[in-house]
Amino acid sequence: MQPARIRDVGEFSLIKRLTRRLRGVGRSLPLGVGDDAALLPGSTRGRSLLTNDLLIEGVHFRRETVPPRALGFKALEVSLSDVAAMGGRPVAFFLGLSLPADYLLSDFDALAGGVRASARRADVALGGGDTTGSPGPVTISVSVVAALSGRALRRDGARCGDLLAVSGPLGASATGLRLLEEGWRWQDGGVRGSTSDPVACRHARAALRAHLFPRARLEVGRAAARMGSCHAAIDLSDGLVSDLPHLCARSRVGARVERGRVPVAACARYWARRWKIDPWVLAAQGGEDYELLLALGAGALRAWRRRRTPPAPRVIGRIVPARQGLLEVRPDGSLAAWGGSGFRHFT
Amino acid sequence: MQPARIRDVGEFSLIKRLTRRLRGVGRSLPLGVGDDAALLPGSTRGRSLLTNDLLIEGVHFRRETVPPRALGFKALEVSLSDVAAMGGRPVAFFLGLSLPADYLLSDFDALAGGVRASARRADVALGGGDTTGSPGPVTISVSVVAALSGRALRRDGARCGDLLAVSGPLGASATGLRLLEEGWRWQDGGVRGSTSDPVACRHARAALRAHLFPRARLEVGRAAARMGSCHAAIDLSDGLVSDLPHLCARSRVGARVERGRVPVAACARYWARRWKIDPWVLAAQGGEDYELLLALGAGALRAWRRRRTPPAPRVIGRIVPARQGLLEVRPDGSLAAWGGSGFRHFT
Repeated sequence: MQPARIRDVGEFSLIKRLTRRLRGVGRSLPLGVGDDAALLPGSTRGRSLLTNDLLIEGVHFRRETVPPRALGFKALEVSLSDVAAMGGRPVAFFLGLSLPADYLLSDFDALAGGVRASARRADVALGGGDTTGSPGPVTISVSVVAALSGRALRRDGARCGDLLAVSGPLGASATGLRLLEEGWRWQDGGVRGSTSDPVACRHARAALRAHLFPRARLEVGRAAARMGSCHAAIDLSDGLVSDLPHLCARSRVGARVERGRVPVAACARYWARRWKIDPWVLAAQGGEDYELLLALGAGALRAWRRRRTPPAPRVIGRIVPARQGLLEVRPDGSLAAWGGSGFRHFT
Repeated sequence: MQPARIRDVGEFSLIKRLTRRLRGVGRSLPLGVGDDAALLPGSTRGRSLLTNDLLIEGVHFRRETVPPRALGFKALEVSLSDVAAMGGRPVAFFLGLSLPADYLLSDFDALAGGVRASARRADVALGGGDTTGSPGPVTISVSVVAALSGRALRRDGARCGDLLAVSGPLGASATGLRLLEEGWRWQDGGVRGSTSDPVACRHARAALRAHLFPRARLEVGRAAARMGSCHAAIDLSDGLVSDLPHLCARSRVGARVERGRVPVAACARYWARRWKIDPWVLAAQGGEDYELLLALGAGALRAWRRRRTPPAPRVIGRIVPARQGLLEVRPDGSLAAWGGSGFRHFT
């Protein structure tokens, strides 16, 4: 018999294995493993959140397609997105960079410039940095500390009857990724690809921009946290198809999503048509849009619509009892089991 | 002209480059970049520290020589050591693991077991975990959040006239590293190497243990932080030769170290004799002993000696005005410029 390898068990099983082993060690945290960020101990007011991410060349990005400035920008935004999903205000970030010795100094500066642009946007200070050599892949570790002014938005608070809503259109990032794979490139704020048709280029630019320079929905998260009847949130990093089950599992509920109501980005609709594929694949199975998925009461949504900024999220379905499971309502009214798959590591 | 590569500028210059670029972005932190850990904003009582480390196969360790259990243990202890150097009490840690798909599940379990052993020792809880694939090197990112009950021990507080002291003997870890390079291996709590001579094996075991299972000096750091006249601290991760200049630069002071007073671990003395090298090379130029280097008043040291636990640090020299620079006093009484070099990345 062959000895078991980690690819045989998968990413989530590994995290469980680790968590089980560490259970009961140390003083337990208010909210530990399993959400977008961990709540640190402290008084009820003025609590802090911490989130961590590891980005690795060849797993999360390819150096050929992601310019250094985009890499720096996105590395920080991805972590800020976890903070957004908890309703926090980012305070400080910590950057670990592992780079091969022959990495160009100009690329390092561009990467640092991208980090700076994201940090300025989010008004977050560099708390610490570390650079080390790398035997190969560019590796970036980012931690963000955030403050909570009120309660945290969690994954486990969704209730039956809640509306399910997303903060914006989906599918742009997956479209951008596919365009990069087809040879399109981001260059000096524009795009270069297989056609110079201005409409195609405009949609390609929107898609590449969404993929390379995503923006954490910090304002949306904070607005949601302020509403008492916004019960749960998660950021769409792996894609709706994967992230909705996470939220439902943690909340012990089911969900019914109306496929026709899921907002699809204009660039995804355009390119789906050209590629002759269902835009749903880009919108729901693709990840990295970093929109927030929220479970909230109808009253909260009405109040949100009256306030106008940030724009109210768009309803795509509702939370149902766990025994009803996860279903999608097709445009023809038929019901189907929630399907497809998000990105999986190790497989 | 060839374009500049990061190996042309070195690790510390890169961190400076990054810091300069991020200066003024976000709300400034009480103590940011430049110390062992960052102080997070908060009230004077109940402040928090955060520290981050990235460990990469081929840069910080080799998979052939470091058993998975040791890797897990050491990964956490290295970050805890930064907390020790600031006088904090660790509360929660966050672990990011990037592993190749063919990594053995039994090795994963051993690694997690090592993490657990360190977490239990330090009484620190897992706050979050993340596992991703790796295209090659095993990569571990660790963040630790710690609480400060009083003030933080910083790098920048050393004063002229302070005694310079280390918390324990040095050189064991460097001896262990050299033994691993010579083919010695840690196995089932014992060692296996080029000789079965019991004295050599005993010293080899002590050296390998120090290198593979270092222990953060958390108690020493907390004891030092409680003493008003312990003015500065740093953990000896890169080695005395490199870390003393860091402390002096941040405090804007010089130092005079009496070479004959630097305590050398018994295993380092034994193996230095066998290798016919100066044990000073192992004790001062080798890193990863994770003892603390402290700058403190004579009164603080006397008080510490009366308390007994943890054992008082051993005096190796004193802090002098910056204009006198960094000097070592040789055993024959002659003065020499502080020399040698610690571990450098990218070169």
